[in-house]
Formats: sequence, structure tokens, C-alpha cells
Amino acid sequence: MNTKNNLQKILKDLNSIEKELSLLRGISALLNWDKDVNMPKKAFEQRADQETLISVQIHELLTSKKLVSIIKTLSQKSIYSKLSDLDKAKVDLYNWKLKKQLKVPKAHIEEYTKVLSITHNAWVNARTKESYAEFMPYLKKVFDLKKKEAKYIDAKAHPYNVFLDDYERGITIKDIDQIFLKLKSDILEILANIKKSQNYNKINDVKPESFGIYSKELQLELSKELSKKILVDTNRYMIAETIHPFMTTISSDDIRITTAVRSDPFFSFGSIVHESGHALYELNFDSKILDTILVSDGSLSLALHESQSRFWENIVCKSESFWKGYYSYYASKFPFLQKISLKQFYESINIAMPTLVRIESDELTYGLHVIIRYEIEKGIFDGTIKVEDLEIVWNAKYKEYLGIVPSKPSKGVLQDSHWSGGNIGYFPTYILGSMYSVMIYNAMKKENPKLDLDIEKLDFNFIRTWLKEHIHQYGASKTSKEIILAACGKNLDVTEFTAYLKKKYYKIYCVKE
Amino acid sequence: MNTKNNLQKILKDLNSIEKELSLLRGISALLNWDKDVNMPKKAFEQRADQETLISVQIHELLTSKKLVSIIKTLSQKSIYSKLSDLDKAKVDLYNWKLKKQLKVPKAHIEEYTKVLSITHNAWVNARTKESYAEFMPYLKKVFDLKKKEAKYIDAKAHPYNVFLDDYERGITIKDIDQIFLKLKSDILEILANIKKSQNYNKINDVKPESFGIYSKELQLELSKELSKKILVDTNRYMIAETIHPFMTTISSDDIRITTAVRSDPFFSFGSIVHESGHALYELNFDSKILDTILVSDGSLSLALHESQSRFWENIVCKSESFWKGYYSYYASKFPFLQKISLKQFYESINIAMPTLVRIESDELTYGLHVIIRYEIEKGIFDGTIKVEDLEIVWNAKYKEYLGIVPSKPSKGVLQDSHWSGGNIGYFPTYILGSMYSVMIYNAMKKENPKLDLDIEKLDFNFIRTWLKEHIHQYGASKTSKEIILAACGKNLDVTEFTAYLKKKYYKIYCVKE
Repeated sequence: MNTKNNLQKILKDLNSIEKELSLLRGISALLNWDKDVNMPKKAFEQRADQETLISVQIHELLTSKKLVSIIKTLSQKSIYSKLSDLDKAKVDLYNWKLKKQLKVPKAHIEEYTKVLSITHNAWVNARTKESYAEFMPYLKKVFDLKKKEAKYIDAKAHPYNVFLDDYERGITIKDIDQIFLKLKSDILEILANIKKSQNYNKINDVKPESFGIYSKELQLELSKELSKKILVDTNRYMIAETIHPFMTTISSDDIRITTAVRSDPFFSFGSIVHESGHALYELNFDSKILDTILVSDGSLSLALHESQSRFWENIVCKSESFWKGYYSYYASKFPFLQKISLKQFYESINIAMPTLVRIESDELTYGLHVIIRYEIEKGIFDGTIKVEDLEIVWNAKYKEYLGIVPSKPSKGVLQDSHWSGGNIGYFPTYILGSMYSVMIYNAMKKENPKLDLDIEKLDFNFIRTWLKEHIHQYGASKTSKEIILAACGKNLDVTEFTAYLKKKYYKIYCVKE
Repeated sequence: MNTKNNLQKILKDLNSIEKELSLLRGISALLNWDKDVNMPKKAFEQRADQETLISVQIHELLTSKKLVSIIKTLSQKSIYSKLSDLDKAKVDLYNWKLKKQLKVPKAHIEEYTKVLSITHNAWVNARTKESYAEFMPYLKKVFDLKKKEAKYIDAKAHPYNVFLDDYERGITIKDIDQIFLKLKSDILEILANIKKSQNYNKINDVKPESFGIYSKELQLELSKELSKKILVDTNRYMIAETIHPFMTTISSDDIRITTAVRSDPFFSFGSIVHESGHALYELNFDSKILDTILVSDGSLSLALHESQSRFWENIVCKSESFWKGYYSYYASKFPFLQKISLKQFYESINIAMPTLVRIESDELTYGLHVIIRYEIEKGIFDGTIKVEDLEIVWNAKYKEYLGIVPSKPSKGVLQDSHWSGGNIGYFPTYILGSMYSVMIYNAMKKENPKLDLDIEKLDFNFIRTWLKEHIHQYGASKTSKEIILAACGKNLDVTEFTAYLKKKYYKIYCVKE
């Protein structure tokens, strides 16, 4: 066999491993989705066993000698140079993953897994008891193990950089510090200005649910209708109800969105649109990268993924243009809205004000919630913040940035599940996503000056095509940085985001710039 | 290590293989259930790949050297004699399965699998075209391969016995011939007598859907309510909608029932109760046999399983006692029933008359449908019937036994999917189930003379307890023959069944015995 045939054989072997991994990941996603949507309660433990079985298979395949050896071979300069761009991107991603996986001793992984397996429960219990002190020892252990892990992976790097890179390949403290400095000061400035506005209290007192009772069935019907306008092909996705909305991929033609209906009509509406944004991304990958590491969960940029959900939820469906075109139809479905003006309704779903809980916060203040978490994580890694003091630090930061203090830990330091799940370094991707979404909108608008009219008409053809061409098709075959640079003509620019916030909220609250 | 420790080690290894098999079977069941309930249409191929991946894992584990060697060791007389009764039952079952699996050459299995993979589609297409001729060559191939397979497994046995044994361990042509002889003549006699009755046309003209339109929501609500009375613990099962109702087991605390709602109100009602009967069986296995071969799909007696669904559907929910207690409540939900008497409603859901389609037939004529299929399968195996002539044979038998002839193959020889799926030898278990269900009812009644009053009161406590104690707990740790003998004090007795039919239908049609 000659070298070329050999290479073909190796690539074929890689394909078949990747196909199996893709199938297993889909099965794992189904087990998890079904747990939230359908599973009878008492099956909890047996489902955990089923999920573990598949997870172990995925892990074993990902760390198998065969795969490691394939990647080692393909990484040899003489071979790597002959690969297609897509294959190069694959090899890069595997090396990025394997570097971490192969450097951390098995004993450490086992200890960490064991600790995590009890930490989530500890967090749930501590929340119920409203006691950070109860959760603290568990969280300390998690951070201690993370510090150790960082040393194994790169003893010279700032430990936080090691984990930021887990969620957004290549990003560092240096990048984020710079971005967040500007972000924080701009948000605080905008917030201070709208607070001074005469309309601030008047607008912020009127929530959309105060207008009447939005029937559950109609809420769902309208949300699904809108979702179909975004996703188009109903034979490739489905929508179910869960307590917490999410999106998951069972296979490339089987995307599941979940939602929940609340008295606030924008909850299901916004969450379905949000998850549809994630779904459209996953539905639009180029067929050449399906069933490979280039579309797998841990490879895709979380920030870019989030930019898609936030684009549809915030930029499209919370915009004036959208409601200008949609409101009369929407109000015809809920008769009590007949006496509510478009302006009033639009304002009611765009209230901006300091609140305690990140996931309930608005577009403007959301960034502050993320910045607080980022500062805390960074502080713990560089030793300036102690896990023991976290509740005090948390409350002080909320007081400083948002002017409010949690009355209890469940509304404060114990509100997020991320830390108890070991997801440290994750938070920044949320707000990076928001920033990307504004840049994407601006880039689109440059190309199509009638973009707002499209949105008003609920005509999403241009948007859908643009997103597929500039963002979606690539999956993880390019980094988010490369994709944004090519799509928007520049790197992440925080000022585009804060200019958007200024324009939007100054108009709502009648603040002169 | 001494021998005792060695044995413990072997049994532990067996447990861990069985646990993995059980998890994989549950995952496989979920993939299949989800396909019918939730999956977006275009995901069909990818789902097939996911299902194949898990099937292959199950097959490889079941035929693994490790398992085969464990069973060989445990089968050694000196070791087998020391095993607990449950472990003996396990070893027996594995030997029963392995005997077949190890005797058939791999090449044959591959050819058979390949043939089956296209046969179902061929059947679907032939049905659409209403052409038996189109399906015939495929069916011939299936039967030819089955004949070959039978020779591999047991060259001396009647080939049909080999496959009857697949679905009902130990049963033979000799047993069934004897049972069906009596069954056929009794059914034909009862049918002839009720046909002569003055009421025959009057009763058979009034179907329950002729009384009014039963709302879909209410039908489902009432069916689910009743299902809860049978299954009690709603945290261990759930009900969804599919085109064809079925029951499947994801894990021992996660049983899924599906149903469909039609204009005939007894369709969803009856099918949920039917599947609840299957479900209760699976929910009641003794905890000692969970996650073993003793509760697995291919081990449980299909006839006994079917006896459970038919017990609840026919013996309980199509009985006079049940409707005596339930009808006023039921009629209060569907106001148009206020003017329909209990007697008339009861008769409308118990119409007996020759029909063409097995799954739409009544308790009385159902047996004839099964007998026809049995005679055909047997005839093909012993050479007295040619696959080429099947449509003619089919129509002639329907003419002879039921007095009617299919107008088209989809209502005749092409109506069932069993043959296209290779499930040959399966049909007899349906009617064996009906016979068992009557024997079970009679045995229960001996112990509790107030049984009918219980049913009238919808008080299922005694029934539930009796079924668990005498039938359910054992799973496949005993054969159906052993279980029925212990529970009913005798072997399968066809006269109990035909006496039940006589009593029921002579009363409805006012025929004097």
C-alpha cells in the first residue's frame, strides 16, 4: 500500500470513529431530553445508569489508543501539510482536546468526577436551606481541584486562562479584562442616565402580564408559529415543554427545543425564539462537517452559539421593527391588548432595571451580572478572593454595580448551577454572545439597508441566508474570532454593543444623548 | 481462591453483563418509542443508525465469548446443581437462546438480516399497490431462509416447531393442533348460533360511534383515569399518542404506553387498558429478577404477556359488571349517551360478527383469524401450501371459516406486518393469551366469589394483588405452563375459553344453550 492509500485508510478510520461518536452523542442527548420531557419520576436512578453507560462509551472512544494514534499520525508535519482545510481543522481540535485530556492524571479526573457527583446535590440542598455556608466546603473543593488541574495542563499560564479556553477557544483574561472594562463603565453610565429619566418608574411599573391573562395554549401556538418562521422545516425539529427551556441535538435532522409557559407572555415567546436561534445554527451546518468533531458540543464556540439565540430573541423579537409589524396580529389573539398601545407593549417587554437574578435580567443590566461572576472567578484563581468570603464579596459587588443586595442566597450567590457543575469560565461567553449578535446585525444591515423592514414584515429569508453563509455553515471548522472577522470585517468591538444599548434604551426612556 | 469464591465471581460477572444488557435494551426501547412519539420525520435514517449501533452492542454482548463461557461453566452439572433456582432458570434461558444463536452460521444470519431489511418496505409497497404478486417473491425468500434456519437448529424437528418455540417456549404443533381443533369447532358453532338469532342484525348495526361524537380530550382523560386505577403509581409509567398503540419498557420504573384516539370511543379506551395490562405485568416483576434475562423481551412468554392485556381489555373492561358500575359516570361525560341504555351501550361494544381484519375483530371471531394464519404457516413449512398460492389459500379459508372474502389484499393476505418482519410462529400466542386470561379470571373467582362486584366497583385491589402473586412476579423464571398450572390448578384448557364465549355471546344475542 502506498502512502496515499495509507492516508485514505487513516482518514476513513477517523470517519468511522467520528460517526460512532456522533451517534452516541445523539443517544446521550435523547436520554437527557427525555428525562426532562417524558420520563416518569421514579426512573431517575436507572436513567442515570443509562446515561453513564453512554457517557463512558463516549469517553473511552475519545481517549482510545486508536483515536490518539490517528491524531498523532495526522499531526506529523509531512502528513498534516497534505490534509484538506477541514481535516486540518479537525486535527487541530482533537489536539486541543487531547492536550488537556492526556495531561491530567486519571486519578485526578476520578477525584474530580467524584466530587462533582455530590456537589450539585449539595448546591440544591444549600439553596433550600438558604445557606451559603453549607455549600462553601464543596465549592472550595471544586476550585481547589480546578487549580490543580490548571497546573497539570499548563503550569505557566494563569489558571483561569486554562478554563476560559475550555468554553471559548483562545480567549484570555487579557482580552476579557479589556472588553469588560469598557462594558462595565458604559452599562453603568446608561443605567445611571435612564434612572434619572422621568419615565423610569412609570415604564418599569408596567409589566406585560399586568395587561391580562395570556392563555397557555395561545402563547404556545404563537411561539411555535414564530419558531416555524425562523426554522421553516418542521420535519427537522420539534418543541416540547420542560421547567427550564433548552435546545439539544439528537441528530443533524432532529433538533429539540423546549419551553415553559408562564404568566409573563414573553417567557415562552422569548425562550422559544432564543432556542430557535440555537437550533437554526445546528440545522445549518455544512453537510461536509456533520458527524465530526467540527459540530460537536465541546468544539463549537459557546459565544457564537449564544450570539445566535440572542440575535433572534433580542435583536429581532425585542425590537421596535418586529413589534411594529407583529403587534396588531398578536393583540388580535389577546383581546385585552386592544386597549394597549404598541408603544406601551413594546416598552413593557423592554423594561431595564437592576435585578438580582441573572436569568431574569434585561439586555442592559445582563452584562453586569456576568462581570460580577467573571471578577469573582478570576479573583479566586489569583488568590485575591477566598471561597469562604464569596457571599460577602457577591453581595458587595451587587451593591456596588446594581445598587441592590440579595435578601437571601438563592437570589444571590447560590442562584446559578454553573459552579456546582464545575462550569467555571463559562459565564463570559453569554455576554460575548450578546456583543457578537449586535455586530452581526450591524454587518447584515450594511449589506441590506432594508433589514428592519424585513423584520417588520417577519420576512426572515435574507437573515436566514446571511447567517448560514457567514456563520452557521462553518461549525467549529473556524474559530469564532475568524468567523466574526470575516463576517463583520473586524474583531469583537464592545462599542458596537454599548452603542446599541444606548440607542435602544435612551429612546425607550426618552434620555437625550 | 476457593471454588465458592470462584462461583461468586462468575455470578458477579454475569450480573454485570446482564445489567449492561438491560440498560442497552432500555436505550434501544427509548430510541424506538421516541421515533414514533416525538421524532421529526427527516431524522429517520440517522435514527436507524442510532438503533443499529445499540442493537449491534446488544448482539455482541449476548454472543460474547465471555458470556458464552460463563454459561458453559454454570451449566456443568456439579456447578449447576449448586445454583439457586433463579440462577438455574437464568442458565436454562441462556442455553435456550445460545443453542439457536450458536448453531446458525453467521453467513446465514447476515443473509437473513439483509433480506428482512428490504422485506418490510416491499410489504408496504405491495399493500399500497394492492398486489400480493409483488410481495410474494420476498415472502418466499423469508420462508426459504426460515426453513434453512430450522435445519441448522434442529434437523430432526418439524421446522415450524423450531419457530413456535421462539415465541412460546416449549409449545409444539401437536399441542396447538389439539387446542385449535376444539377452538375452531366451538367458535364456528357459537357463531352459527348467534347468526341465527333474531337480534343478530339489530345489535350488529349499532356501533358505539353511532350515538354521537366523543371528544378526543375526554376520551383520553377517561382512558388515562382508568389506566391509573390499574397501574396506580403514575411515577412509574407514562402515556403518549402514536398511530398504533403499543407498550414498551425503558427501565423497570419507566414503562411507556401509547394509544390513538378514533371515532370509535372504545379504541383508545380499550387500547390503553390493553397496554396497561402489559404494563402492569412489567411493573410487577420481583425485584430479584430485574435487569436479568428473566425479564427480557425475548424470554417472557408472549402468550402470558398477552393474557394480561386481554384480561384487562376483554374480561374486565368489556364485561357487563364493569359497565354496570361505570356507565352512569361515563355517560355523564358524553351527554348524548343519556338516552342510550346501559344494555344498548354494552352490546354496541361487544358486537360479534365475521370481519376481514384481525386487529379489528371481536373476542369471538378473533380465534378464527389466528387459526387461519397458523394453518397457513404450518402448511408452508410442511409443503402442503405454496407461498405462490397464498392469496388463494387465504381467501378460501376466510370464505370457509368466516363466510367472507377480502375485496383487496390489504384487507386480506397483506394485512399483517408479522411475516414481512420474519415473525413466523408468533400468531398463536395471541389466542393462547385469550385462553389464559379466561382461566385466570376463573381461578380468581374461585378464590374471591365477589370478583364481579369488585369489577363493578372498579376496585382492582384484589385483582392486582392476585396477578402479582400468581403471575407477574415470576417473569420468565418459570414457563407459562408452570405458572398457569400453579395459578389455575390445571394446564391450558380450551373449554374454559369457549364456555366463556358461549356464556357471554349467547346472553347478548339471546341464544338458548
